[in-house]
Amino acid sequence: MVRGPLTTATFFSPVQESLRLVERRMRAQSDGHHPDLAAALKHLLSSGGKRVRPAVALLTGGMLGADRDRLVTLSAAIELLHTATLVHDDLIDGALLRRGIPTLNARWTPASTVLAGDFIFARAAKLASETDSVEVMRLFAETLSTIVNGEITQMFSSQEITCRDDYYERIYAKTASMFVLATTAAAVLSPVDEDVIEALRTFGYEIGMAFQVVDDVLDFTGEQATVGKPVASDLRQGLITLPTIIYMESHPDDPDVAYLKDGSYYNETRLNRLIPAIRESGAIEEALYAARQFVDRGLEALAELALPLTAERQALEDLASYIVSRHR
Amino acid sequence: MVRGPLTTATFFSPVQESLRLVERRMRAQSDGHHPDLAAALKHLLSSGGKRVRPAVALLTGGMLGADRDRLVTLSAAIELLHTATLVHDDLIDGALLRRGIPTLNARWTPASTVLAGDFIFARAAKLASETDSVEVMRLFAETLSTIVNGEITQMFSSQEITCRDDYYERIYAKTASMFVLATTAAAVLSPVDEDVIEALRTFGYEIGMAFQVVDDVLDFTGEQATVGKPVASDLRQGLITLPTIIYMESHPDDPDVAYLKDGSYYNETRLNRLIPAIRESGAIEEALYAARQFVDRGLEALAELALPLTAERQALEDLASYIVSRHR
Repeated sequence: MVRGPLTTATFFSPVQESLRLVERRMRAQSDGHHPDLAAALKHLLSSGGKRVRPAVALLTGGMLGADRDRLVTLSAAIELLHTATLVHDDLIDGALLRRGIPTLNARWTPASTVLAGDFIFARAAKLASETDSVEVMRLFAETLSTIVNGEITQMFSSQEITCRDDYYERIYAKTASMFVLATTAAAVLSPVDEDVIEALRTFGYEIGMAFQVVDDVLDFTGEQATVGKPVASDLRQGLITLPTIIYMESHPDDPDVAYLKDGSYYNETRLNRLIPAIRESGAIEEALYAARQFVDRGLEALAELALPLTAERQALEDLASYIVSRHR
Repeated sequence: MVRGPLTTATFFSPVQESLRLVERRMRAQSDGHHPDLAAALKHLLSSGGKRVRPAVALLTGGMLGADRDRLVTLSAAIELLHTATLVHDDLIDGALLRRGIPTLNARWTPASTVLAGDFIFARAAKLASETDSVEVMRLFAETLSTIVNGEITQMFSSQEITCRDDYYERIYAKTASMFVLATTAAAVLSPVDEDVIEALRTFGYEIGMAFQVVDDVLDFTGEQATVGKPVASDLRQGLITLPTIIYMESHPDDPDVAYLKDGSYYNETRLNRLIPAIRESGAIEEALYAARQFVDRGLEALAELALPLTAERQALEDLASYIVSRHR
């Protein structure tokens, strides 16, 4: 099922023109507002996001025959919602760089960063309303609730996550929920039945889960020079992800595992033992296998619909496969 | 036009039962989410808001024949939107008390306060979508943009506001926009024509403007013991409101006025001269007169519709008059 690495261009090509319209639509959202908001939006949109979520929405809707204008509006809404959550996330985490570019909070005060995020939420909601679909609005608002609830849960959990179910719940809230929004809302805007919408919801869920698992794997395998942050930066910050969970499952007697379960203080010596141990344990491969299973289930849901093999459907399948084969 | 002080009960009575449903609806928004979010929402909703905005929406829709369930949903959405903006405002201002009760940021970290605000935005948007009206959603999102843009403008303005037009623009964004949302969205949910919606938009604008002008007057006239903050706390924080602007207009040669226009540093001696000077100059009365004019224009717009004199219409008129006659 998994093909070799694909350049993004392959599956972006059927929606390249639409993606340009999405970009323009997003940038226009500061028109008529304070110039500093325009500058902030421009900075955020220039910082090299891959636009995977809008591409998923555009391809899904394109495959199912939705109106292009409404899809462009929806896709712009989704990417701005994603952008707004990143603005508040980076503020909360005190992150100074994202994709090698200064975050908004690195340049602005916390107060103005909060407001900039709120403004982008507002514009995302405005765009969502312009799809003229109450159901899209509902999905949109529900997704934001899910994402924020996930972050609050993570913040207030006294116990570290050390089992797969909790991990999957967390990455659903954090990442897959937005992919579900992209595919489901695009299907809602298409002339299709409820079962098609349901299948696309599944597809979005599965590829979204795979996307985050692979992201978490890349945090372990990426070289510092490429990724721009130290290897296993998640674990170093106390965030336990799938490779670590798998290692913990298979090494219950490792004293460093007990330390992780303890969720106690940062211990450099233990981390410097644990990180290479995880990397060499086969946990990476097992996590990637889990990601592949997610993608396969997604592709299966799509295949069951027996849709004509349009360029969009092919691109969507390629994109799903790319998610597990990609490098950062 | 202005009647004597009214107890809130007078004009809340036609919608008392609905307001109870609004309250229940708002509290239910944390169901199924993290318990700390539920605790935060409960705390925020218990902190004694007067529910003026939901009352305005309920009375408007009741007067125009909207479905009660949808009005309750809309009103809960509006009050939660208002609540979410207050959560982020208090965080930004570092306010520790609101209406004598600890703010969320007084108890929570900045990070969790940002997320709590985001969560309440999300639930407000979710409720707005449940009105089943795309137009309501559009108004809703546009209002949030206006409010946030107003805050950003205020934050980034290098020059203090010293003329009425800028002041009116600021209080429109800050306060009147939400009243416009309450009346306009309620009208949109009612079986009425565009001109009725327009008249209600005007009504919401005018009473919202009056509401903030009176709030700003009360900041000057309220006794510290009643208001729970020092007299002229706005001016002490560098926020110039209508009474001060009126004083500046009529006392261009007062050296303390030049100091205000300068927008420079805090000067206790000057403030201690200025505040009693403003209070005794007639500026308070002139500001209240301006508020009364707003209300009169609002009532005029309503009167032109020649609607039957229902309990809701009477209550809405009483509420409008109460806005200028109220004490905190």
